Amino acid sequence: MKINKIIETCLYAENLEEAEHFYTTILKLTKVTGEEGRHIFFKCGKGMLLIFNPNHTKNNQTNVNGDMIPLHGSKGNGHIAFAVEDYHTWKEWLQKNDVEIESVVTWPNGAESTYFRDPAGNSLEFVEEDIWNLT
Amino acid sequence: MKINKIIETCLYAENLEEAEHFYTTILKLTKVTGEEGRHIFFKCGKGMLLIFNPNHTKNNQTNVNGDMIPLHGSKGNGHIAFAVEDYHTWKEWLQKNDVEIESVVTWPNGAESTYFRDPAGNSLEFVEEDIWNLT
Repeated sequence: MKINKIIETCLYAENLEEAEHFYTTILKLTKVTGEEGRHIFFKCGKGMLLIFNPNHTKNNQTNVNGDMIPLHGSKGNGHIAFAVEDYHTWKEWLQKNDVEIESVVTWPNGAESTYFRDPAGNSLEFVEEDIWNLT
Repeated sequence: MKINKIIETCLYAENLEEAEHFYTTILKLTKVTGEEGRHIFFKCGKGMLLIFNPNHTKNNQTNVNGDMIPLHGSKGNGHIAFAVEDYHTWKEWLQKNDVEIESVVTWPNGAESTYFRDPAGNSLEFVEEDIWNLT
């Protein structure tokens, strides 16, 4: 009995068009699928980033072949961190695209994180290296 | 310029003691670190699952070596999915531990998902195999 990985990470955004533009154009993620007004799903490494409109998923039951997908959805600013290659190029890329860098943090081991926001206000973080020694 | 992976996935829970018990005992995740009343962090494969008390992280500025960690925190039910080995054993394990199975979904490709809740009401999902063809 083992959990291999988190295969789906979720954030919430009420404006999915804005989210799609940001995550495909600025973060260069590949959109896998979407449903207007409900969700937009992106591939991210060996996992998926799912962005849901909480006004939809909190209230409307969805079914797959008659099986029920449980309700979920939250309000407020979520947070996720991305491990990136070419960290400093990404940082410049954000600035070039007028994405405000909210904070830059240097961790005790010397690695750096850059924090910024998606259009919905979720706190996103680019991490320079494997700060958690996970590999 | 490439995003390698999501290295930190977050959920929110106001009662961190309850969350710690659930995630270590039922989901058998390894706790890496914690701060009473603020957060508890778990290793999960090659990523981290971070559980924050939103009442703390929404309101209280935290600093690392003088650098500012941005505020975040949401209310409502989040969602994440775990890719697991021994899916059917996990399903039995949940039932044996009186974790209510809210729904079982069979996807178009025949793979199955089991949905349940953590004590904070977050919607968790065990996925039988790589339903997204990510490997």
